[in-house]
Amino acid sequence: MTPAPTLSAELRTNLTRWRRDFHRHAETAWTEFRTTSAIIGALRDLGWATIFGPDLHEASARLGVPTTDVLAGARARAVDQGADAELVEAMGEGFTGVLGVLETGRPGPVVCFRFDIDANDLNELADDSHRPFAEGFASVNDGAMHGCGHDGHAAMGLGLASVLTGMVADLTGTVKIIFQPAEEGVRGAHSIVAAGWFDDVDLFVATHLKSDDAKGGVLTGVDGYLASTKFDVEFSGVGAHAGGDPEKGRNALLAAASATLGLHAIPRHSAGASRINVGTFTAGEGRNVVPRTARIAVETRGETSEINDFMVARAADVVAGAALMHGVDHKVTVVGRADTASPSPELLPFIRASFTGVPGVAEIRDTGGLGGSEDATAMMKRVTERGGLATYVQIGMETSWGHHTERFDVDEDMLAVGVAAEARIALDAPEFLAGLGRA
Amino acid sequence: MTPAPTLSAELRTNLTRWRRDFHRHAETAWTEFRTTSAIIGALRDLGWATIFGPDLHEASARLGVPTTDVLAGARARAVDQGADAELVEAMGEGFTGVLGVLETGRPGPVVCFRFDIDANDLNELADDSHRPFAEGFASVNDGAMHGCGHDGHAAMGLGLASVLTGMVADLTGTVKIIFQPAEEGVRGAHSIVAAGWFDDVDLFVATHLKSDDAKGGVLTGVDGYLASTKFDVEFSGVGAHAGGDPEKGRNALLAAASATLGLHAIPRHSAGASRINVGTFTAGEGRNVVPRTARIAVETRGETSEINDFMVARAADVVAGAALMHGVDHKVTVVGRADTASPSPELLPFIRASFTGVPGVAEIRDTGGLGGSEDATAMMKRVTERGGLATYVQIGMETSWGHHTERFDVDEDMLAVGVAAEARIALDAPEFLAGLGRA
Amino acid sequence: MTPAPTLSAELRTNLTRWRRDFHRHAETAWTEFRTTSAIIGALRDLGWATIFGPDLHEASARLGVPTTDVLAGARARAVDQGADAELVEAMGEGFTGVLGVLETGRPGPVVCFRFDIDANDLNELADDSHRPFAEGFASVNDGAMHGCGHDGHAAMGLGLASVLTGMVADLTGTVKIIFQPAEEGVRGAHSIVAAGWFDDVDLFVATHLKSDDAKGGVLTGVDGYLASTKFDVEFSGVGAHAGGDPEKGRNALLAAASATLGLHAIPRHSAGASRINVGTFTAGEGRNVVPRTARIAVETRGETSEINDFMVARAADVVAGAALMHGVDHKVTVVGRADTASPSPELLPFIRASFTGVPGVAEIRDTGGLGGSEDATAMMKRVTERGGLATYVQIGMETSWGHHTERFDVDEDMLAVGVAAEARIALDAPEFLAGLGRA
Amino acid sequence: MTPAPTLSAELRTNLTRWRRDFHRHAETAWTEFRTTSAIIGALRDLGWATIFGPDLHEASARLGVPTTDVLAGARARAVDQGADAELVEAMGEGFTGVLGVLETGRPGPVVCFRFDIDANDLNELADDSHRPFAEGFASVNDGAMHGCGHDGHAAMGLGLASVLTGMVADLTGTVKIIFQPAEEGVRGAHSIVAAGWFDDVDLFVATHLKSDDAKGGVLTGVDGYLASTKFDVEFSGVGAHAGGDPEKGRNALLAAASATLGLHAIPRHSAGASRINVGTFTAGEGRNVVPRTARIAVETRGETSEINDFMVARAADVVAGAALMHGVDHKVTVVGRADTASPSPELLPFIRASFTGVPGVAEIRDTGGLGGSEDATAMMKRVTERGGLATYVQIGMETSWGHHTERFDVDEDMLAVGVAAEARIALDAPEFLAGLGRA
Repeated sequence: MTPAPTLSAELRTNLTRWRRDFHRHAETAWTEFRTTSAIIGALRDLGWATIFGPDLHEASARLGVPTTDVLAGARARAVDQGADAELVEAMGEGFTGVLGVLETGRPGPVVCFRFDIDANDLNELADDSHRPFAEGFASVNDGAMHGCGHDGHAAMGLGLASVLTGMVADLTGTVKIIFQPAEEGVRGAHSIVAAGWFDDVDLFVATHLKSDDAKGGVLTGVDGYLASTKFDVEFSGVGAHAGGDPEKGRNALLAAASATLGLHAIPRHSAGASRINVGTFTAGEGRNVVPRTARIAVETRGETSEINDFMVARAADVVAGAALMHGVDHKVTVVGRADTASPSPELLPFIRASFTGVPGVAEIRDTGGLGGSEDATAMMKRVTERGGLATYVQIGMETSWGHHTERFDVDEDMLAVGVAAEARIALDAPEFLAGLGRA
Repeated sequence: MTPAPTLSAELRTNLTRWRRDFHRHAETAWTEFRTTSAIIGALRDLGWATIFGPDLHEASARLGVPTTDVLAGARARAVDQGADAELVEAMGEGFTGVLGVLETGRPGPVVCFRFDIDANDLNELADDSHRPFAEGFASVNDGAMHGCGHDGHAAMGLGLASVLTGMVADLTGTVKIIFQPAEEGVRGAHSIVAAGWFDDVDLFVATHLKSDDAKGGVLTGVDGYLASTKFDVEFSGVGAHAGGDPEKGRNALLAAASATLGLHAIPRHSAGASRINVGTFTAGEGRNVVPRTARIAVETRGETSEINDFMVARAADVVAGAALMHGVDHKVTVVGRADTASPSPELLPFIRASFTGVPGVAEIRDTGGLGGSEDATAMMKRVTERGGLATYVQIGMETSWGHHTERFDVDEDMLAVGVAAEARIALDAPEFLAGLGRA
Repeated sequence: MTPAPTLSAELRTNLTRWRRDFHRHAETAWTEFRTTSAIIGALRDLGWATIFGPDLHEASARLGVPTTDVLAGARARAVDQGADAELVEAMGEGFTGVLGVLETGRPGPVVCFRFDIDANDLNELADDSHRPFAEGFASVNDGAMHGCGHDGHAAMGLGLASVLTGMVADLTGTVKIIFQPAEEGVRGAHSIVAAGWFDDVDLFVATHLKSDDAKGGVLTGVDGYLASTKFDVEFSGVGAHAGGDPEKGRNALLAAASATLGLHAIPRHSAGASRINVGTFTAGEGRNVVPRTARIAVETRGETSEINDFMVARAADVVAGAALMHGVDHKVTVVGRADTASPSPELLPFIRASFTGVPGVAEIRDTGGLGGSEDATAMMKRVTERGGLATYVQIGMETSWGHHTERFDVDEDMLAVGVAAEARIALDAPEFLAGLGRA
Repeated sequence: MTPAPTLSAELRTNLTRWRRDFHRHAETAWTEFRTTSAIIGALRDLGWATIFGPDLHEASARLGVPTTDVLAGARARAVDQGADAELVEAMGEGFTGVLGVLETGRPGPVVCFRFDIDANDLNELADDSHRPFAEGFASVNDGAMHGCGHDGHAAMGLGLASVLTGMVADLTGTVKIIFQPAEEGVRGAHSIVAAGWFDDVDLFVATHLKSDDAKGGVLTGVDGYLASTKFDVEFSGVGAHAGGDPEKGRNALLAAASATLGLHAIPRHSAGASRINVGTFTAGEGRNVVPRTARIAVETRGETSEINDFMVARAADVVAGAALMHGVDHKVTVVGRADTASPSPELLPFIRASFTGVPGVAEIRDTGGLGGSEDATAMMKRVTERGGLATYVQIGMETSWGHHTERFDVDEDMLAVGVAAEARIALDAPEFLAGLGRA
C-alpha cells in the first residue's frame, strides 16, 4: 500500500473549524441549505464539479420532505446565517445535498465516498458540562442539533476532498464524494440512488463516527443494519367543550394514546430483533377542549425485511383499531425506509490495510453490528447489485454520551483518521480492483 | 285505612327461617330451581294457584340464560338440596320463578306484588364477623350468595301470601305475587311481561330492602333508575407458544385489556349520569401461550335511555376497535336490559298511609334515587302504559355493608314491616282505586 | 324601572368595531397586552379611573402564568400590533386586565360588572364559510382565537362604560367594570379577588354570550358551575437510541399515554357530574429516540367541590402510578382552579326586570346550567360572603357552532342587548338595594 | 459403536399404548399422580429401584405447587382413574415424578436420561380432524392436555427401561431414568436437583419431540434456551356497586389491564431476544360490581439471564405502578424459573454416532435453537458444574400443529427412534467416557 498521507496542520485546523461551523448551524433533514451551500462553495474552491438541487434527486423518490412553510423558513434562516442566496434558491423545495466529482481524466474506476450532513430534531444541552455549549459552538437553531456526528462527517468529506485535490496527479479514474442530506429518518438516499448517481460506482465507502467504541477502534464492515420504516399517523376527531359537551367530542388524543400502547404491544418476533418506537406525540387544542387532532411519529425496525414488514403490518392494524375505538379518522404517511445490507467481504482486507498504520487508529475489527438503520444501505445495494464493492466503515470515538442525545459530542481527533485512510483508499483502489480482476 | 295486620309469632319465625333457607341455598339467575320449588310448595300449601315453567315466560324474550350444562348442574344440585324433582324437571331450561295467584271470587281490581329471588355471583365471606357464616346459614353453593337481599324479598313474598290467605274473606278482586327470577343482570322481567301476566294489573308494588338507609326508613316511590344494557364480549385470536413463536399469536387477552381501558374512557355525558363497568375478565389458556380467547362482562347505564344508548354505541366502537388493533375476532351478546321508570305520583300517598303506623317503620319519605338499575321497571312500564298505577318501595335496614359485597346481610326485623304494610295495601287497594275512579 | 337607554348608531358601530378589533388581535391568557392597552385607552378617553398592572393583582395568587419568554414575545407582538408601549411595559410579567372605576361622587352602592377578555388556544378556521375569515377579521395571531366570545364581552364592557359615562348625572355610588384576563383555564380571577378589589362590591353581574341558545334568550342566574382544577404533568425519563439501545431508555411518552388512559378511567361519581380531560399532549424529541420528556395538560371538574377533589386525588395516583410503571419522574403543577357558586335568588327578579323590554331580548328564564367552569365564581363568592348580591347572566345567540371550536362566532346583535340592560342595572341598583334594606 | 438394538413388535405396541394412556389421562404440573403411579408400577415390574415422593424432592425448592384443594382433587381423580391409592398417598402434597435406577453391580459411570411427564393447562380439541379425539384417546380431564409431547416422552422412558432391562448383562455402571414432573412452567427440576440426585451423574441426556421439524430430523445438542421467570400477580382493590357507588370502588381489573399493556410495552433489548407474556387474566366478581380482585399469570424470557433480569425488574415497576394508578394492592409470587444452558460440545459426536443408522432417523444436525425455556437446564448445569457431560436431544416429528396448541399430536413412529438410540448411548457411554479419560 501507498503510505497514508500526512495531513497538514492547516487542514487539521480546518477539519475542526468546518465541523464546529456545521455544528453551530445545525440543519435537520431536507433543510441543510446553509450546510450544502458551504460545502458547494468549498468544493468549487477546490475545483471539483458539483451536482446539486433537483439534478441530484429523483423528486418522486424523496421521503419525508417537510412542508413548504418549514422549507421557506429554513431557506430564509440559511441566508440569514450566511448561505449563498442563489444556491439556496437553486435548492428550492428541499433539494439539499451535493455530489462532488473529481475527474482525473485518466482511465480507472469510480470510487465513491459518502458523508451525511443533516442534524437531529433535538435541542442541544445548554450546560457548561457540554463542550459545544461551553466553547460557544452549540447549535443556534431551535430544535436542530448535530447529535449523531454528521457535522464531523461533513467536515471529513471536505477534508478528504482537500487532500485528494492535493494528490490529484497520483489518482486515476473518478472520485465522487456524496454529501447526503436527510439520513436521519432514512429519507435522503433513495432519491439520489434513483437519479442514477450510483450506477457507475465500482467501490463505495460510507463512514460513520461512533461514540460508544474505543477511541480509534475501526470497523471495516459494519453489518447488522435493521430494516426500518418510518411513518406518521394523524388522527382527526371532533372537538367539543370538555366541560359542557364531552359526549360530542371524538377524542383524537385518546386514539393516539391507545395506539401508542398498542404499538408497543406488537409481539416480539422469533426470527430476530425487532423494534418499535413512538418518538413524538403532539395532540390537542387546549386544556378544556376534547382533542380534535393528534399526530404521532413512529418507526419500526427488523433484523430482516420480513420482520420489519411484520411490524409494519401489525402497526397498521393497531392504528386503524385505535381510530375505530375512539370514533376518529386516521391517516398513515410513510416518510422513511431503510433496508438491510451487508459489506462486500472481499473488500474488507483492503479497507483494513488502508487504515493500518494511520495515526490515531487503535485497533481494527472486520465486522460488527450497529443496531440501527441507515439509508447508506440503499447505496450499498445499488453498487453491489451492479457488480461493485461496498462497505460501511465505523470509526470509534472516546465520547461518553450516546448518539441522538442532547449531550452528544464528536471527538475531533478522529476526523483526520478518516481523511487519511480514505485518501489512501482512493489512491490504491484502482490497483486493488485490478487485482481482483475488476474495473 | 284498615289497621295493619299483626303478624303471629309463628309467621315471624317462618320469615326468618325461609330467608335463611334461601340464603343458605343461594341460586343465581335462571338457576333458582330449589328456591322456586320451595316457593311453589309453600304457595300450594296455602291454596294459591301457581304459574311457572314455560307458561310463565315468553321464551324468546329471556335474556342471559346460562348454558345447558350450567342449567343441568344447577338442576341436579337443586334436587340434591331438597327440591322437588318433578317441579325442577318442569322448569327445564331455566324457566324459573313463579306467579302465585289468589282469586277471591269477588269483583275487584288486580293487585300485584313483586319479589325477586335470585342470588349474586359472589362467594360469601367465610369469617366469623359475618353473621350468616357465624350462625351457619352462609351459602353452601360456590359462586352464589344472596348479596342483595332477594332471600329476604322471597321470604316477605311468602309471608305476604300467608297473611293474605288468613284474611281472604276481607279481600276482593285478585292478588298476584310474582316471585321473579334473574333480577341480577336485569334479565328476568322481560319474558314474564312479554307473556302477558301484567296486562291486567291495576296496582303494582315492587319491594326492595336497602342497606345503607336508616333502619325502618321507607321510600314510597323509588325513582332515578338508570337505564342499563348488559353485554358480554368474546374475543377470539390465535394461540401460539409465547417463547417460540410469539409473532404467530393474535392476542385476545390484549384485545380485551385494550377494550377495558377504552370502555372506561368513553366520555361522560352532559345530559346526566352514565356508568360503565367491566365486571369480569377471563382470558388465556396458560402462562406460556399467547392467549387465544378472552371474555369480558360489561354493563352500561344512563340516567336516560338516550345516555345509555350513547354508551352502548360508543362501547360497540371500542370493542370493535380493540379487536382490530390486535387482529382478533369479537362477538357481542346482549344479556340484560333495563329501562328507566318512575312511580305513579297519585299512588304515593296511599303507600305512605299503608306504611304509617306499621311497627318498625321509622320515617317515610316519598321519593329518592337508587342509582342502580332494575328490571321491575319493565313491569312498572307495562302496568302504567295500560292505565294502572305502579311504584317501587324501599325499606331501609340497619346493616353496614353495601349491596353486592361478600359481607352483605339482611336485617330480618324488616321482613315483617313489608309483610304487614303490603297486606294492608292489598286490603285497601280496591277502595283506594275506586276513590280515584279507577277499577 | 327606568326605561332601558337607547343606544346611538355610533355606539352600535363601535361595539362591532371593538369586537372585531379584539377578535383579529386575539391574545390568550395573561398575554392580553394589546387588548388591555386598547381598553385602558378607551376608558381614559371616557374619563374613567383605571387600575392595572401589578396593582390589580396579588401576584402570588396568579395561576398558570406563561413563561417569561412567551410573555416577552407577546409584549413585542402587542406593540407591533399597535399597543401603547408604555402601558405594555407597565403590565410587565403578565399583569394584564384592567379595572375601570366611575366615581359619581354621590353616595350609593358599589355596582360591579365583569367582562373577560382573553382568547382561546385555538387556530381559527381559514375558510370562507367562517364569517370572521370571509370578512377579514379572523385572528392574525397563531394559536390564539376568540372561540368563546370574550371579544364580544370586552366590547360590551366598553359599550357599557360609554353609555354610563353619558348618563353619569343619573348615577349614584360607584360603578366598576372589571375587564378580567385569563378566564380560560380559570386562572385570572383569584389574584384580582385576593388584591381586594371585590371587597366593597354590593351588586355584581358577570355576563356571558352563549352560542347554543335561542337568539335573545336571557338567563338571569346561571347556575351549575362545575368546580374545576387545571394542572400540568411533566414526565421526565431517559432518552436513548430507539434502534440501538432501546432498553436504556425510560419512556416518558409511554408514561403519559398510560396516564391518559388511566385518567379517563377514573370512575364516575354517584353524587353528581364529573369531568376529566387531557387537553394537550406533547412528547418526544425525535422519531428514533426513546422519548425523554412528555407533558400533558389536564383538567378535572365536579358538580361539587367534593367531587372535583375526588377527581384530583385519583388523578394524582394515576399520574404517579404511570410514572412508576415506566420508570420516569413526574411533576404536577396546578395552573387553574374554579369553585362552584350560585346566583343570589333575591337578585334575579331585578335582573329580569332590567332585561325586560330591551330590544333584542326574546325570552327570559331565571336559572339553568352552564356545564362548564368559570372563575367569575371566585368574584361571586367574595361578593356574597361579604353580604353583597351576585349573579351571572347569559345572553343567547343565534350561532350554530359550539364554544371553543375553530368556527365559533359571535352574534353581534346581542352586544347592544347586554349594554342596554346592564346600564339600566347600574341606574336602578341603588333603589333596588335600598328596597331590600341593603346599601 | 454397538449396533442399535432392534425393538420388538411388542415393545412398539407398548410404546403407543403407554403414550395413549398417558395422553388420555393427562395431568398437569405437580398433579401427575396417576402417571407417576403407572410409571412406578412398570419400573417395579422391570425390577428397577424407584425413588419418589418426598425422597425425590427438596421440598423448599419446589416452585408453583397448586393449592391443597387442587392436589386433593387430583389425587382423588387419579385413584378414580386407576392409580395405586397407596402410591398416590405417598406422593402427598404434589411430590410427583419418579427416578428409576438400574444398578448393574459392575463398576462404571452413571448415565442419566430425562423424560418429563406433565401435561399442559389446555382443553383438547374435540373435533374429528384431531386424531386423539377421533381415535378415542383425547384427554378426559378438563383443562389438562398433553400439548407438548410429554406423553410420548414418558412412553419413551418406559421403553428405554424395558430395552435396558433386556440387555442388562451388557451394561456396566448405573443407569438412571428421571421421569420429571412439572416441566411446564419450569417448576419441577429445581427441587430434584436440590435433593442431590444429579450430583453423581457423568453423562446426561434430556430428550424432546419437536413438531415443526422434518420427520426423523435429530438435533444432538439443542441450544439457545431462553432464561425465564414465571410469576403471578394478584391485585386487590375494593368492591362497590358499579351503578350506585362507582367512586367507592378501587378497581383491581383495571389495574391488571393497565399492567398488561405496560408489561407488553417493556422495551426490546439490544443484547438479544426477550419475551413477555401475560398468559392468563382472571378478574372480577360480577358484571355490576367494581372488580375487587384480579390475577394475571406472567412470564418473561431472555436470551441471557441478564436480559431476563431486565425484564423482571421492569415488570416489577410496571405492576407496582399499575396498582398505584388504580389505588389497589398487589402481590407478586414467583412460580417458576429457568436458566440458559448449553450442551457439552465434546458429547455431540457421540450422540450423533448413537443416532446414526437408527431406523427412522432422517438427518442429524448438531446444534440449533429451541426458542423456549426448559428446566432440564437446571440438571444440565448441575451435571456440567460437577464435571459431567450433558446434552439435550430433539427428535423431529411430522406433525403440523405447534406445541401448546389444542391440536398438538405426537408422531408415534418417533418413539422407537429415541428408545433405540438412547439404549445404545447407555451401552457405549462407558467406553466413550473412558476414551475421553473420564469416569
